[in-house]
Amino acid sequence: MLTYDLTLRGRKPIYEYLSNCIRKDILSGKLPSGAKLPSKRVMASHHGISLVTVENAYGQLVMEGYITSKEKSGYFVANIDVVENSKTMEEPQIGKQEDTPIKSIWMDFTSNKTIEAQFPFSSWSKILRRILSERDAVMVEPPLYSGIPLLQEAIATHLEEFHGFKAHPERIIIGAGAEYLYGILSQLLGRHKMIAIEDPGYRKIRQVYESNGVRVISIPIDHYGMNPTDLNRNQVGAIHLSPSHQFPTGICMPAPRRHWWISYAKEEDVYLIEDDYDSEFRFVGKSVTPMVCIDSERVVYLNTFSRTLSPSIRISYMVLPERLYEIYNKKLYFYSSTVSSIDQYTLANFIKEGYFGRHIARMRNYYRKLKKELFEAFEESGLNEYGTLIEADAGLHLLLKLDSNLPDSFVMKELSEKGIKVQALSSYCYHSNPSYDHHFLIQYTQSGYDKLCKAFRIIKKVVNTNKTS
Amino acid sequence: MLTYDLTLRGRKPIYEYLSNCIRKDILSGKLPSGAKLPSKRVMASHHGISLVTVENAYGQLVMEGYITSKEKSGYFVANIDVVENSKTMEEPQIGKQEDTPIKSIWMDFTSNKTIEAQFPFSSWSKILRRILSERDAVMVEPPLYSGIPLLQEAIATHLEEFHGFKAHPERIIIGAGAEYLYGILSQLLGRHKMIAIEDPGYRKIRQVYESNGVRVISIPIDHYGMNPTDLNRNQVGAIHLSPSHQFPTGICMPAPRRHWWISYAKEEDVYLIEDDYDSEFRFVGKSVTPMVCIDSERVVYLNTFSRTLSPSIRISYMVLPERLYEIYNKKLYFYSSTVSSIDQYTLANFIKEGYFGRHIARMRNYYRKLKKELFEAFEESGLNEYGTLIEADAGLHLLLKLDSNLPDSFVMKELSEKGIKVQALSSYCYHSNPSYDHHFLIQYTQSGYDKLCKAFRIIKKVVNTNKTS
Repeated sequence: MLTYDLTLRGRKPIYEYLSNCIRKDILSGKLPSGAKLPSKRVMASHHGISLVTVENAYGQLVMEGYITSKEKSGYFVANIDVVENSKTMEEPQIGKQEDTPIKSIWMDFTSNKTIEAQFPFSSWSKILRRILSERDAVMVEPPLYSGIPLLQEAIATHLEEFHGFKAHPERIIIGAGAEYLYGILSQLLGRHKMIAIEDPGYRKIRQVYESNGVRVISIPIDHYGMNPTDLNRNQVGAIHLSPSHQFPTGICMPAPRRHWWISYAKEEDVYLIEDDYDSEFRFVGKSVTPMVCIDSERVVYLNTFSRTLSPSIRISYMVLPERLYEIYNKKLYFYSSTVSSIDQYTLANFIKEGYFGRHIARMRNYYRKLKKELFEAFEESGLNEYGTLIEADAGLHLLLKLDSNLPDSFVMKELSEKGIKVQALSSYCYHSNPSYDHHFLIQYTQSGYDKLCKAFRIIKKVVNTNKTS
Repeated sequence: MLTYDLTLRGRKPIYEYLSNCIRKDILSGKLPSGAKLPSKRVMASHHGISLVTVENAYGQLVMEGYITSKEKSGYFVANIDVVENSKTMEEPQIGKQEDTPIKSIWMDFTSNKTIEAQFPFSSWSKILRRILSERDAVMVEPPLYSGIPLLQEAIATHLEEFHGFKAHPERIIIGAGAEYLYGILSQLLGRHKMIAIEDPGYRKIRQVYESNGVRVISIPIDHYGMNPTDLNRNQVGAIHLSPSHQFPTGICMPAPRRHWWISYAKEEDVYLIEDDYDSEFRFVGKSVTPMVCIDSERVVYLNTFSRTLSPSIRISYMVLPERLYEIYNKKLYFYSSTVSSIDQYTLANFIKEGYFGRHIARMRNYYRKLKKELFEAFEESGLNEYGTLIEADAGLHLLLKLDSNLPDSFVMKELSEKGIKVQALSSYCYHSNPSYDHHFLIQYTQSGYDKLCKAFRIIKKVVNTNKTS
């Protein structure tokens, strides 16, 4: 007679515990295929439980197909091809991984995190609260695949005010981060041609395209951005550029080169992807006119709110040329939006009510101050006698060039041991190029004068101590 | 002498308007390459504006590379290969698209929208407000690529309580919707083998995989779910199943078939993708034990909050087997999470504090009531004499089988003209199968007794009027 200790059931209902026990015995082979189960009545009285409880337990197993019910003869174990050695519901082993000791980094020049105090918590929260209190039906409806119209219109207005770019709101595609949109572009442009990317460049761009099955070719940049002479035509279907503030070199592509690329795109019938990831943070003059203003039919304009608001806000957008927009609607209409309606409405109102414009202005001042401190600390520390800060009046990073022959890997290791994290420009190169040696990327979005002075003095010491001459 | 009417500048700053005018003249060829611009001083006095304003305008154009500055000789138009006929900043033509008249649909049996009143606005809002008021630094930090640990743990606890499945929290990957996760799976499993999907099935699954460059094979289902006899081994790298409540037929895969598939996956070294999209809504007994409980090393378990909370909340998750999780960490570590930190923290707290469990329980009662109304209206309308409702005590949809020989397309068209939207089961088939004819999908998440009676009477009339016999 099947007997189970029902006191071991913990907080589970009896019927659930009972069906679990029987299931376990079937899976272990203790109850073989074809075996007859005790009748419901016998099972109930044997365990001192109600008939309904046994009915529920057997019912559950019938529904799952572990047992079958034959009219007037009872319940039988089904014919199951039980898998041996299956790993079933093993207890998670927390803390199983070995803990590798992490060196304590107190100055991270590779991070572009915004300081928490800068996020507009109160206005964001105010809008959210208002939106949710309206309990509007639109908030629970699935957003359109390309994004909600209110946000598309708000972005269009922002683009016109900020960049003088008049975008068609409906062609603004909202997505959960720039990388998601790179993936959508991979699907939109197809995988039969390559995408050309900048070398050195933002590593993720190659990783995302390749992971999406698109072949990628890295084209070296010169002083004006991506150098067209190195491009093998025919093979390439799109060119991914960051003309406003090339990552990581900081180069702003001058107009002649921009126009050259537009001509190229027209001649070859390909698209330019203009990745305008931090154009809002130009500190001298107004922001550079994007390439999409030269020819909106050849340029996919792409931007993100991760830089302007917070990296934790996963909302980016791209503006598609008319022809690509038509293909998008035909090919990718089936997708759901990747950004929750509530977030889209919050951001739309945040822009429309002027909070976003004011936030950018405030952040620009804030970063300007940080940058000023960076230069002052550079002088104060005396590191200026051993290197140069190279910048382009724009963006949230610049380059430190060290007058030294120390290998980049040595400098990174030495500094890391002293708690300073830097990344060499050379590590962003696909094809190695000696002219990029001894350059290091400096993100300065979370610095502070005294910390900077200390860090720069340590860098100076590393260069000075290990001088070769 | 270059003269511009500065009164036309609208709200733009003078320097910006001036640089726009000059840029326009360069692009139109009016100012040819090499042409000398008026000196800053002359330009300023000619227009009655300050020298600084002209300096700003010229500076902007120098920065953009439209003009160059030669020391002691002045400003010259750069050598730009101007693109002819470029479509530049054309005014968006709103309302350009032809408006196709949309028939007024008053009963949509194809929609699974939840009624707005059911979304837990107040508890969601309460948690959000609390989180934002804490202004915690973690809220502005980029979430980990796989998701924030607090949400992973909350989901793990939910999975254990609800399904008895003990998942390793770190292997729970959070993403912006199930479709996004299908894309990640495409990248994870590779594109060299096919993915087998159910026929009939959820159309988007094929569309998303194919758009991600994965070849897909549709395998017919029988009374127990996907039928293994039709599978060409070798070619297939993964099998995408919805065993709890197959879409659209509603079949719950019985245990013998489940075990067969697990054995198959082990023998062939492939993965099963268990799409458990609406398992929370089983109305009789507890929810079916997922396949992942049989063998967590062969099954990728996938579920979404779009069904339980609202389709506007774009948060889904999948639990990866150990080996796939290792590949995921090696191959796809570079991605950013697609769900904003604030949303992840809100949902984590919503689950941990018991709101989610209570919400599911409330929704289950609500849907049970809707389903009861549906059956009552079916009787009341007399449609029960012309057809049958086929259901599996689970999920938010069931099937209406009409006793009629009318072609499915005719029924859909006739009903659509009367304001009723239904979708034939046959339209979800990849390979046509006459046994699926005359079946229609009924989603009942936004119904109402009187409306249902009216709709069913109209369906009855369509069948009755067009009887062939």
